Amino acid sequence: VEAGDAARIDALMEPLHAADIADLFEQIGSQDRAALLSLWSRGIDGEILSELGDSIREEVIEALPVEVLTEAVRELDSDDVVDLLEDLEEPQQERILGALEESDRAAVEQSLTYPEYSAGRLMQREVVTAPEDWTVGDAIDFLRTAEELPDQFYHVILVDPRWHPVGYVTLGKLLSSRRSVQLRDISEDSFRAIEVFDEEGDVAYAFNQYHLISAPVVDGDGRLVGVITIDDAMAVLDEEHEEDVLRLAGVGEESAISDGVIDTVRQRAPWLLVNLFTANIAALVISLFSHTIEALVALAVLMPIVASMGGNAGTQSLTVAVRALATKDLTSSNAGRVVRREAMVGAINGVLFALIMGMVGYLAFGSWVLGGVLGAAMVINLVVAALSGILVPLTLDRFDLDPALASGTFVTTMTDVVGFFVFLGLATVILL
Amino acid sequence: VEAGDAARIDALMEPLHAADIADLFEQIGSQDRAALLSLWSRGIDGEILSELGDSIREEVIEALPVEVLTEAVRELDSDDVVDLLEDLEEPQQERILGALEESDRAAVEQSLTYPEYSAGRLMQREVVTAPEDWTVGDAIDFLRTAEELPDQFYHVILVDPRWHPVGYVTLGKLLSSRRSVQLRDISEDSFRAIEVFDEEGDVAYAFNQYHLISAPVVDGDGRLVGVITIDDAMAVLDEEHEEDVLRLAGVGEESAISDGVIDTVRQRAPWLLVNLFTANIAALVISLFSHTIEALVALAVLMPIVASMGGNAGTQSLTVAVRALATKDLTSSNAGRVVRREAMVGAINGVLFALIMGMVGYLAFGSWVLGGVLGAAMVINLVVAALSGILVPLTLDRFDLDPALASGTFVTTMTDVVGFFVFLGLATVILL
Repeated sequence: VEAGDAARIDALMEPLHAADIADLFEQIGSQDRAALLSLWSRGIDGEILSELGDSIREEVIEALPVEVLTEAVRELDSDDVVDLLEDLEEPQQERILGALEESDRAAVEQSLTYPEYSAGRLMQREVVTAPEDWTVGDAIDFLRTAEELPDQFYHVILVDPRWHPVGYVTLGKLLSSRRSVQLRDISEDSFRAIEVFDEEGDVAYAFNQYHLISAPVVDGDGRLVGVITIDDAMAVLDEEHEEDVLRLAGVGEESAISDGVIDTVRQRAPWLLVNLFTANIAALVISLFSHTIEALVALAVLMPIVASMGGNAGTQSLTVAVRALATKDLTSSNAGRVVRREAMVGAINGVLFALIMGMVGYLAFGSWVLGGVLGAAMVINLVVAALSGILVPLTLDRFDLDPALASGTFVTTMTDVVGFFVFLGLATVILL
Repeated sequence: VEAGDAARIDALMEPLHAADIADLFEQIGSQDRAALLSLWSRGIDGEILSELGDSIREEVIEALPVEVLTEAVRELDSDDVVDLLEDLEEPQQERILGALEESDRAAVEQSLTYPEYSAGRLMQREVVTAPEDWTVGDAIDFLRTAEELPDQFYHVILVDPRWHPVGYVTLGKLLSSRRSVQLRDISEDSFRAIEVFDEEGDVAYAFNQYHLISAPVVDGDGRLVGVITIDDAMAVLDEEHEEDVLRLAGVGEESAISDGVIDTVRQRAPWLLVNLFTANIAALVISLFSHTIEALVALAVLMPIVASMGGNAGTQSLTVAVRALATKDLTSSNAGRVVRREAMVGAINGVLFALIMGMVGYLAFGSWVLGGVLGAAMVINLVVAALSGILVPLTLDRFDLDPALASGTFVTTMTDVVGFFVFLGLATVILL
């Protein structure tokens, strides 16, 4: 296709959804991307730009003719323009702001004054409102004659004279009620307002927890300033999950499969450096027992088993705890019970695997004492693993840090150090 | 509060949202739960039941008087009843089905014939349709006189005479258009139908990718059988993420923070057993080099560093790959490029950390040769880690298995075995 046949490309791209076109741009190599862009730049619209990942988006905007860019951003709702802008460099931001109409530009600039990752960045400013004392008939007449309505809206928000939202009515209820019915009599119970400075993670949680479809956003004085819809909340939920998973694995949370080699090295190397440091601590512990190992090489063979089991069990507890903190299923009211449960689980699994490994130790090296030392180290390390798996994220959370961040490294360092120390220490005392 | 004061409990629970009440039930201990239930059983409604986790839900249903249960399930839409039923034991299912009205019961039983995790289980059967040749006025008159409309609906689905969906109209468009406008002229471009046997994960992906709010579900003949709304898709997306995270950590994907000790042991022990087995393979590799270690104990001190760095780098690649497969950003068309990138990243990080560790090896043990062996093993293991981190999930995916499942264990086994083998092997050849 990259033989320069612009008409065929048009025909092929025409039926595709903007999100799929964006995926296509992300999946092809950078040379193909440049070729496709030069042939097909006028096909790029605002929706496609919205769907692109950050690094590719910058590349594409760089390459677009001004008139295409102008048309592309003018068709978007204000929240999508903000989303497009916030990750771009200064000069590109200027280009896009310059392409907007005056009123839209003011709205977007206003949104950009809210902190990143706040509800203010997420909301769209186009809202459909009605005075709280209107009837269904009033609202329907108003909607039919309104000049410009947002692309997507699901509720009519009722406001009092001071522009405070007091309830909302679903369009379904509006359509199925008689014209004389008061709007306030058919408003929804699920109504709840979001504050403009709320964190976007909390907004996504509220949508998921209370099954919201849209929610009004209010400023510090309780006045309506915008509305957030569920598709934006779903996107945030998706991003937050992604962040958690990547942080747990010690990968920069912004990393994507389409990043280049150098970016990827830059994202991952710092975490490997942290790991190198902690691995050296574990090595230091081992070096304390050099003489013991010299006397009994079997210990060097068996010690990674104790450490590995501890690391695994710790990661299990940790992952469950991080998830439960994210979904607010783990709170200060049940933390004590969960910690006790983890300790119990660690002890039971510890005894279970101590028995198995005790047997293996005996069969492989013919020594019941060695098997016993291995088993005892296993029990202790699995209890430590379970406790650190739950206490590390709880502590981070208590200090308002992200419980997923770096806790994996903490926990495995703990289990490595304890595993090596207890196993080699017990062996030194008992076997030598 | 558990002093038995039922009136006070009523007053306290009244303003809470069903989802918060469900969370409360999950967070208190089982004794408190029983006490609360006996005092407040008539407060439990269908929505609260829907929000409860599986194990707690069974406990609560067990304890509810029949008439409360009957009323609770009658108020729910069909998809919520299906959701409630599918994880319950046979006798409890019967109890709930018995409580439904005849027509609802038939609808629910029909839904249960679709496979678990299919679109058929997710959809609600209550749909709002209009013949494709109606005008806006026809549709509005129909809605105003319709007897029973679903709780939540966002589109009117246009159907042809054979009940095939051909498009849909948002309620917003319906409200803002003149009565004489043809429905088909204001139908949405984003329209796409979902097949009843599609997997729920694919459904959630489609909602997220194409920003759908609701989508019609069709049977094998293309006839409309139900509709899926975005709140259900959002819940699925959330579950799928949870599953991925838990599987990556080697925890049963059903585990929750409210599970008991025995359930938790049962979820985690099998994975620890797998890990024990693979750790023993690594130990076996080490035992091949017993004589080498006996001659040079420094090797026992340093070998966990090589293994740990490999495990960490492998987990990084793996996590990015699993996420990219889940979001369909990694496909057969860019797999080759991504594998090459991972190999490059592994090599660059390998050289970087080889230099650092070479220095550390020299400083700690005063031997350049030992430092060189350590560095060489590091380079090789980080490349192997990067490659196995991407190839293991790609292979699992190729065979239609979940790429998150057990791949963490595969990858760390690989890096442990290669790390120990290369480091001790090189040491044996070069240093002895």
